[in-house]
Amino acid sequence: MPSPVIRIASVGTALPGDPVDNAALIRGFRLPAVWEQWIDVFVGTRSRHFCVDLETGSVRQSLADLGTAAGRKALDAAGVDGGDIDLVVMASATPDTLMPATVNIVADRLGIDGVPTYQLQSGCTGALQALDVACQMLTTGRHRTALVIGGDTCAKHLDLAMDLAGMSPNMQVNIMLFGDGSGAAVLTTEPRPQAPVLRRVFTRLQGRGREPGQTVRWYGTADRGDPGEPVSEDFKAIEASAPGMAAEALQDLLDDLDWKKEELDYILPPQLSGKMTRRVLDHLAVPGAEEISRVEEIGNTVNAIPFFQLEQILPDMVPGERAIGISVEASKWIKAGYAVELPVGGAEER
Amino acid sequence: MPSPVIRIASVGTALPGDPVDNAALIRGFRLPAVWEQWIDVFVGTRSRHFCVDLETGSVRQSLADLGTAAGRKALDAAGVDGGDIDLVVMASATPDTLMPATVNIVADRLGIDGVPTYQLQSGCTGALQALDVACQMLTTGRHRTALVIGGDTCAKHLDLAMDLAGMSPNMQVNIMLFGDGSGAAVLTTEPRPQAPVLRRVFTRLQGRGREPGQTVRWYGTADRGDPGEPVSEDFKAIEASAPGMAAEALQDLLDDLDWKKEELDYILPPQLSGKMTRRVLDHLAVPGAEEISRVEEIGNTVNAIPFFQLEQILPDMVPGERAIGISVEASKWIKAGYAVELPVGGAEER
Repeated sequence: MPSPVIRIASVGTALPGDPVDNAALIRGFRLPAVWEQWIDVFVGTRSRHFCVDLETGSVRQSLADLGTAAGRKALDAAGVDGGDIDLVVMASATPDTLMPATVNIVADRLGIDGVPTYQLQSGCTGALQALDVACQMLTTGRHRTALVIGGDTCAKHLDLAMDLAGMSPNMQVNIMLFGDGSGAAVLTTEPRPQAPVLRRVFTRLQGRGREPGQTVRWYGTADRGDPGEPVSEDFKAIEASAPGMAAEALQDLLDDLDWKKEELDYILPPQLSGKMTRRVLDHLAVPGAEEISRVEEIGNTVNAIPFFQLEQILPDMVPGERAIGISVEASKWIKAGYAVELPVGGAEER
Repeated sequence: MPSPVIRIASVGTALPGDPVDNAALIRGFRLPAVWEQWIDVFVGTRSRHFCVDLETGSVRQSLADLGTAAGRKALDAAGVDGGDIDLVVMASATPDTLMPATVNIVADRLGIDGVPTYQLQSGCTGALQALDVACQMLTTGRHRTALVIGGDTCAKHLDLAMDLAGMSPNMQVNIMLFGDGSGAAVLTTEPRPQAPVLRRVFTRLQGRGREPGQTVRWYGTADRGDPGEPVSEDFKAIEASAPGMAAEALQDLLDDLDWKKEELDYILPPQLSGKMTRRVLDHLAVPGAEEISRVEEIGNTVNAIPFFQLEQILPDMVPGERAIGISVEASKWIKAGYAVELPVGGAEER
């Protein structure tokens, strides 16, 4: 029995509030004005969205709020409702609580019940991990229509009272790089000849003996007095490793699918920072493909990244077109990729 | 092509330090002596293990330490090493950090690399969620030998300085119910005729419109001054719902497998507290089956529970024997179950 074809029926995304540009960012953290140009030139991310109001410090949205909004858009765009979903897989580094898993709050709000729901604790490759788990479960035939969600919010880490200017660069850079957001996709094995096919997803730990490139801590009752920096980013290690890992992920996918680089119509690169994403794209060297990057405008949205990229290309894909998306996670070094194709004539063969 | 048969090649577990009895527990938290008998009679859990030394408050083990120890035992017992593992799925409510996911630290220490690694954020049904994800991925044939790990540690929540006597019962009860630990299993589709077959795993959200029965919070920089109680347990709701949900899970499995209750040789009930587990067992009413409960001795080990139960029965199972394990998660209400059988003559048919 051949494996069922898995199609991306829809994608939806959600961003909190208005964009926060670099001027507003440095104002919020009382940083010297010179930082604005420094971020422009050396980080290359122009704006992002936060679930926290930088003027007042109030938290306007939770991860559950953003995940529900993105999920609702994906369900509506696919023309299905919660009762049609028989599997939910969500990925986040920043769940609202340790328990319940945020996926279950989102499922409840979307009218989804009586089905398996899974939440992955993950960083920048989390959306691909979630897509992979959903794909494998659809492949066995036990499920037919899955909702996959990725998202992150910084509310618990965005302390406007902190002395950012006095902190280490490994802590400072996080404020400039990341943005809050959520994305969702409906995957289905139901016949949808007009929808693109998700040909492959893979994720692969490549962390043997390597120090983590990014660490994000959480605090409980016993350690919340700990003055240590909660977030740390080894940006030098990321600069050194990310382009090569991305290129390997691309080559692995091309080899696996027997596709040629020249046949790609879209390339969806990792969304590290504006600058780093540009460097990775240069290293990937896929000249014929349209580059789909959202990082300069919305920052690194971590577990939401691929959904923001996919929503750009899905309406434009024409039969015969192919796209590859690449993710790299620095936490303990994971490379990941996925391949999407809109087959000619809606063909179902793999 | 028939689905591959998935066997439990081995199970390993790890507990930190010496058992902490109820007398030591109330001493550690400076509670009145009368509590000792109250816990004996109304909770029914006699001892548990903690990664924190109750005398000194020092943290002796991390989740990565316990997960590595359990994983190592499982690998050794199965006679495989890290290089034979092509998939790792871990479940925890209490990861050491938000990033990297603890699963990747464990994988590194066990010599596992170049494969997908997934970590589920989950409560008491987490081990079954991890078993389910691994089983579905083995079923597609993409993987052959998976390491599944579950575990939890209370280190970040076990603040010996806190005024437990002044807290709400919903907070107090958590100290009495839970214990730290980790468990692991090697699942494989390789021929292992002497190993029991994992016939089914299912987990199902049943949270529609219901308030969470358990909440565990985490704190970041921005909210770590929040004096709110970090853990809350609606024990009345759990008492009211758990027996019925467990009975439904059992019946769902029996129906799905076309097994009869009378054919069960072992029943592995949810491990809520000594008392609640007794009540659930009475409600399940599987008189012919041996009851495998570890909760009185090691407490509710959350994401490690089924591994502690499985390690009791696997050496004793003889061909033709059947076991069912049931889990209930109160966080947002999930029911789950799994079925294990040692086929007569090592038969491979499903």
